Amino acid sequence: MNQSPNPTLQGARGSEAGLARVLIANRGEIALRAIRVCRDRGLSSVAVYSEADSDAPHVWAADHSVCIGPAAATKSYLSPGALVHVAKMTGCDAVYPGYGFLSENADFADLCAQNGLKFVGPSADAIRTMGDKARAREVASGLGVPVVPGSEGAFTDPAAAEAVAADVGFPMLLKAKAGGGGRGMRIVREPDAFRAQFLQASREAEAAFGDGGVYIERFFDAVRHIEIQVMGDGRGGAVAFDERDCSVQRRHQKLIEESPSPAVGPDLRARLKEAALKLTQGIAYEGAGTIEFILDVKTGEFFFIEMNTRIQVEHTVTEMRIGHDLIAMQLDIAGGAPLDPALADHVGRGHAIEFRINAENWKNGFMPSPGRLNEWLVPQGEGIRLDTAVYRGQRISPFYDSMIAKLIIWGETRDEALARSRAVLDGCRVDGVETTIGFHRRLIDHEDFLQDRVHTRWIENDMSLESLGGA
Amino acid sequence: MNQSPNPTLQGARGSEAGLARVLIANRGEIALRAIRVCRDRGLSSVAVYSEADSDAPHVWAADHSVCIGPAAATKSYLSPGALVHVAKMTGCDAVYPGYGFLSENADFADLCAQNGLKFVGPSADAIRTMGDKARAREVASGLGVPVVPGSEGAFTDPAAAEAVAADVGFPMLLKAKAGGGGRGMRIVREPDAFRAQFLQASREAEAAFGDGGVYIERFFDAVRHIEIQVMGDGRGGAVAFDERDCSVQRRHQKLIEESPSPAVGPDLRARLKEAALKLTQGIAYEGAGTIEFILDVKTGEFFFIEMNTRIQVEHTVTEMRIGHDLIAMQLDIAGGAPLDPALADHVGRGHAIEFRINAENWKNGFMPSPGRLNEWLVPQGEGIRLDTAVYRGQRISPFYDSMIAKLIIWGETRDEALARSRAVLDGCRVDGVETTIGFHRRLIDHEDFLQDRVHTRWIENDMSLESLGGA
Repeated sequence: MNQSPNPTLQGARGSEAGLARVLIANRGEIALRAIRVCRDRGLSSVAVYSEADSDAPHVWAADHSVCIGPAAATKSYLSPGALVHVAKMTGCDAVYPGYGFLSENADFADLCAQNGLKFVGPSADAIRTMGDKARAREVASGLGVPVVPGSEGAFTDPAAAEAVAADVGFPMLLKAKAGGGGRGMRIVREPDAFRAQFLQASREAEAAFGDGGVYIERFFDAVRHIEIQVMGDGRGGAVAFDERDCSVQRRHQKLIEESPSPAVGPDLRARLKEAALKLTQGIAYEGAGTIEFILDVKTGEFFFIEMNTRIQVEHTVTEMRIGHDLIAMQLDIAGGAPLDPALADHVGRGHAIEFRINAENWKNGFMPSPGRLNEWLVPQGEGIRLDTAVYRGQRISPFYDSMIAKLIIWGETRDEALARSRAVLDGCRVDGVETTIGFHRRLIDHEDFLQDRVHTRWIENDMSLESLGGA
Repeated sequence: MNQSPNPTLQGARGSEAGLARVLIANRGEIALRAIRVCRDRGLSSVAVYSEADSDAPHVWAADHSVCIGPAAATKSYLSPGALVHVAKMTGCDAVYPGYGFLSENADFADLCAQNGLKFVGPSADAIRTMGDKARAREVASGLGVPVVPGSEGAFTDPAAAEAVAADVGFPMLLKAKAGGGGRGMRIVREPDAFRAQFLQASREAEAAFGDGGVYIERFFDAVRHIEIQVMGDGRGGAVAFDERDCSVQRRHQKLIEESPSPAVGPDLRARLKEAALKLTQGIAYEGAGTIEFILDVKTGEFFFIEMNTRIQVEHTVTEMRIGHDLIAMQLDIAGGAPLDPALADHVGRGHAIEFRINAENWKNGFMPSPGRLNEWLVPQGEGIRLDTAVYRGQRISPFYDSMIAKLIIWGETRDEALARSRAVLDGCRVDGVETTIGFHRRLIDHEDFLQDRVHTRWIENDMSLESLGGA
């Protein structure tokens, strides 16, 4: 461990990739992961940590570590100035953002560039464009990627709206132009009901926001969240990997991810990847990104919803399916290396399932459960991967995200992966904090999950936690 | 944890495979591994432990645990009576032996059978046959598997011996029939030297053992240790997997294993597997086994040396190459399931390297280094597997084998696996006990290792530990 405030840095070996030392602007498992890949690539690494994280493994794992402030993330991991200051002070030439924190902050990417630091990720422009949902939709649509059908603009005149509605299709969602919080929002299931619902929505919008303008968008009762991991080198080289299915969510928080999706066959997979690649290449994207789609299982139609311009938590499920290291690709590309063209021919193998192990009490509304991890044993073996930065005896801090580990299970088939998952989840011995392990164990035996009947609102709408034996 | 002396056992779900509850007659990582696979297969597991292991993870991991005696292995893990007693008392119908301890003890296999317990492994007969090196050589030779060329019997008459010597080929090794400890042993490099050396060896043997009989065997200066993992179902079904190279040894203790071998190309691989399969099928072998060969790299000739009738420590390097769980196969076969015929077409992928992490001071003659594991951080991520039963804060006991973990690294190519290995070994933070991590880290940068010039006596004869920066 090296925590000197002004460390004399030695050991940067340089790399083919053109970088030498990387500031790891994150914590937890992703920081550990990136530190290891830096070493793999001959790069030295500088970790940063808050006062609450002084005993965290990423602090010991990095070549050098610097404390950047108090526990509150806004004063440490979310502090662009502190991060850039440390990067410059320690002679870094790049900043690795990970996920969360400042990873999708275009201003931070700009600040890095202004300070001569390579931000490991796409350009600030790409982050901005994709961060603006309306603009992202325009770009995708312009490149021929299907987007959720909807009106181009907002309407106040019911006749004009009705004319457009036929093109959008039923059921549809009416959304206040200036809206938020569900006000001015209406689901319309039949043409006959359109006019009355539109007038109500417009009046409600006028009353709530002083603007009666209403958008029209296709509404889906039950969709799956399907996403495509992409990687681009910013110079035309790009690849789209096999899809991840992240439909098991609770309040938009993903809980379980799988690759491949049980709902996607070879043809659909090819079309999803083609669409994702079109967008990635169309914007000459650099680095790792995820293109998210909703999939209407009934019709097989899929629609772009957004692009995440960073590595995601669940990238590991793709790694287990494809056998390539996505973090290494990020760093290689950031250093100027072109994407290996052979990746275009990659063939995924088997089935991977990722379980997010959160320190949460799932029987009590998934309340965070910080505390001391008195016992921590996760079974090991063929087809089992555990990405974590916690250890037996560690205190789980209340200050950050409650995810303490990602457990990724691989099998030749989904059934094999599920059988192995049951054994591994049953075999975990954890004490001191509540975790979501028990939730996962029960969930994967739920008939809907086994029969592929899940969708993004399944947990809230269709499944009762009581049915899992929850509170 | 359930340590009641006479536990009421619940929860055996039975399995397709015909077993319900398995006694795990081992400790450490292999016990943990087997417990997990039992769970995977719907089998309940009973762990046994010595008084020195009361805080070992396999004790908490199993469904039930029973203390079987004091620390000394002879009074616990090596006590057939205690193991069978506990197995019967707890309602087990099978015994999983792992490696080491009683795993190749035919009498123990017999005792299990006499008590109605399925020994997870081959028949006691197969263990006995293969445990008798002369008999094993006869069986292999009879099935057309090449064995080290040598005389059929021992000679005292130099003329008769000389007549046979020409067939064996030079250099050759003269070995006292009744010998041991190197006495009566001579290397003969040229025909001219034969007669004088033979007479000396015979006299020495006569003096030392009262028997002047001398065997003749081909001698190899530098061979590689290549082994083939096999699996048979005892009913004709058998498969031979891609080879492991275990040439990096110190005093016959393997340190690093790789799959595939850098010294084996596709043709040789096919011939090795064919020979191994011939032997496996020829004896209608049941369970996991390893057929060991020496490979003369100069000529490409290989010769059977022995068969290990159990799972081996290094089976994991094969799993990382082939993507199948060998422990699961063992349990399925023991339960009566036939071997999946599709395994014959398995295709290995990439390159896997296993490092045995021993609690030893490699700078001081690899002396065991028991103690408290104050720090224990091994990097994680794509292509990294750690099989271990130790945790931060645990006391490493002096009573058993000093191996505390197996680190297995996978890469698309050997170079990629080595680059990743460097990063992972560099990233390990271990404190409290000395380990072989530093040794491995230096060894994989040794020119001989990189250039595939290693052989089974490389560490003793050709490499100086000083060249690694050792003491």
